[in-house]
Amino acid sequence: MISSVPTKEDIIKAHERIKPFIVRTPLLSHEQLNELTGCSMFFKCENLQKIGAFKMRGAMNAALGLSPEQLKKGIATHSSGNHAQAIARAAHLLKTKAYIVMPHTAPEIKKAGVRSFGGEIFECEPTLQARESTLAEVIKKTGSTEIHPFNNYDVMAGQATVSVEIFEDIHPDFLIAPVGGGGLLSGTAIAAKYFSGNHAPTSSSGKTQVIAGEPTGSDDAFRSLQSGKIEPAQSQTIADGLLTTLGDKTFPIIREHIKEIITVTDDEIKAAMKTIWEKLKVITEPSAAVPFAAVLKQKQKFTGKTVAIILSGGNVDFGKVLKYFN
Amino acid sequence: MISSVPTKEDIIKAHERIKPFIVRTPLLSHEQLNELTGCSMFFKCENLQKIGAFKMRGAMNAALGLSPEQLKKGIATHSSGNHAQAIARAAHLLKTKAYIVMPHTAPEIKKAGVRSFGGEIFECEPTLQARESTLAEVIKKTGSTEIHPFNNYDVMAGQATVSVEIFEDIHPDFLIAPVGGGGLLSGTAIAAKYFSGNHAPTSSSGKTQVIAGEPTGSDDAFRSLQSGKIEPAQSQTIADGLLTTLGDKTFPIIREHIKEIITVTDDEIKAAMKTIWEKLKVITEPSAAVPFAAVLKQKQKFTGKTVAIILSGGNVDFGKVLKYFN
Repeated sequence: MISSVPTKEDIIKAHERIKPFIVRTPLLSHEQLNELTGCSMFFKCENLQKIGAFKMRGAMNAALGLSPEQLKKGIATHSSGNHAQAIARAAHLLKTKAYIVMPHTAPEIKKAGVRSFGGEIFECEPTLQARESTLAEVIKKTGSTEIHPFNNYDVMAGQATVSVEIFEDIHPDFLIAPVGGGGLLSGTAIAAKYFSGNHAPTSSSGKTQVIAGEPTGSDDAFRSLQSGKIEPAQSQTIADGLLTTLGDKTFPIIREHIKEIITVTDDEIKAAMKTIWEKLKVITEPSAAVPFAAVLKQKQKFTGKTVAIILSGGNVDFGKVLKYFN
Repeated sequence: MISSVPTKEDIIKAHERIKPFIVRTPLLSHEQLNELTGCSMFFKCENLQKIGAFKMRGAMNAALGLSPEQLKKGIATHSSGNHAQAIARAAHLLKTKAYIVMPHTAPEIKKAGVRSFGGEIFECEPTLQARESTLAEVIKKTGSTEIHPFNNYDVMAGQATVSVEIFEDIHPDFLIAPVGGGGLLSGTAIAAKYFSGNHAPTSSSGKTQVIAGEPTGSDDAFRSLQSGKIEPAQSQTIADGLLTTLGDKTFPIIREHIKEIITVTDDEIKAAMKTIWEKLKVITEPSAAVPFAAVLKQKQKFTGKTVAIILSGGNVDFGKVLKYFN
């Protein structure tokens, strides 16, 4: 287990050990999206990752970091979303049990995803307090180890491998990730520090600038950067993967490395999502469309630049999305 | 221009010359789809191809086969679908004009696609007769050259390159393509003849067996194989890319090489399409889901085998398709 901010070696090791359990996702581009934005855009398709989201990387890396004794007793987490499925699949691959605390309001498709990998679900009220107390009970009863969705350095090192693959292929001026709890964003920030600008740099510093996209209806990271302390999240957005508050492991890294967070409204997220579906032909969940919405909102900032975007996931309720597109 | 059934060299040459204008599409797989079908499945994502369909390959190869004099006067076709957009993009790339005859009933999204590449649209009544007479008039007036959507050996050689890429990556026992006019299917059949089984063959003959999928509501290819002559198509299916009748260049190749066509109902197509969207996270049009529907229908045939499927395109009207999922 990694006990402080992941080093370059931690990330390289994470990438090597998770490779058999993940796919190298394609980096797509589209002429008409370049014309629309005025920049050269690349989309890292983590929506095509195992379980349909980058979360597989961090969960797998953290599970692989446990001792045989820990692993034997199972892994546990509370999550209403993609991390739950990632933990369930990691446990399945490592032949152990997954105990997942989910709010009873979680979409049936996400519960079914957890069950499809043999994960055991414990339902609770949809409050953070209920989730945490239910998880504590489950851990007490089972002796399992918690793998937190983002406030965990092994998870962070796993999420950083998304960007390692981007930098193996291209050298963007900007790299944009969505921010919820900050696991992907902090991993992206340290990956850019270690791996960008090594050859053929296109930006003046040789380093890629990492920017975050965040929904205006849950802009706690934006406000946290302004106030200098972790601000609580609201829940007023369709981007259901980005409702969480930053953690004490992710916030310091984000505060050090992230100079800009672009906030976007739900209407901007819907428009960006529809454009991605129509042009790139990949299914993107609302949270994953946030970085592209940010580029569309601030086109002048990116004109003529090379911009990479992380399409973080593709787990959607089709019935809901249809309504967004009407 | 190729004047008879494409040779192996014709296909290799086609691949080389279209490469700068197409993308090498990913070949995706998914553990849960393997479990569901009982075979090892690979999906060649031509829905992620330029203009969202394999049609780009054939149209580009045919356009590149024209003389400078021909090219100068423009290229023309009648099509209500993906071939229209492919011709428009090919003309745009080669700095010439595209004249596209489309039925006035064609979806607005497809007309918009043609216009986005600067193609000129001539609307006509939605009958084959009106399409052909309008195209004849346009060609007479402009001196442009027709590129037929499928009954054209250069187009066929271009479509064959989909399978060339598949055989570069894997050696399936079965390769399944949808059949409409037969351009993709005949190209796939000759590609399997030339390129499959060269190394590490898994089927007993060393050659990959090519099978077609066809909607029951437009099963003219199925009936043509039975009767030994080209049968007219009906139009009773949601698979709007597969409504056409075989041509006199495609039928003889299909009759020689294709031993089996599996027909599937619209309900089976919808279910297959939904599963692809949910699991693979790529947008697939109804026609493109036909081969997967065929595997789901005849699972026992494919048990334990390696099966490659061509996801032929991803141009859909979301309003329509998302209703299929309800």
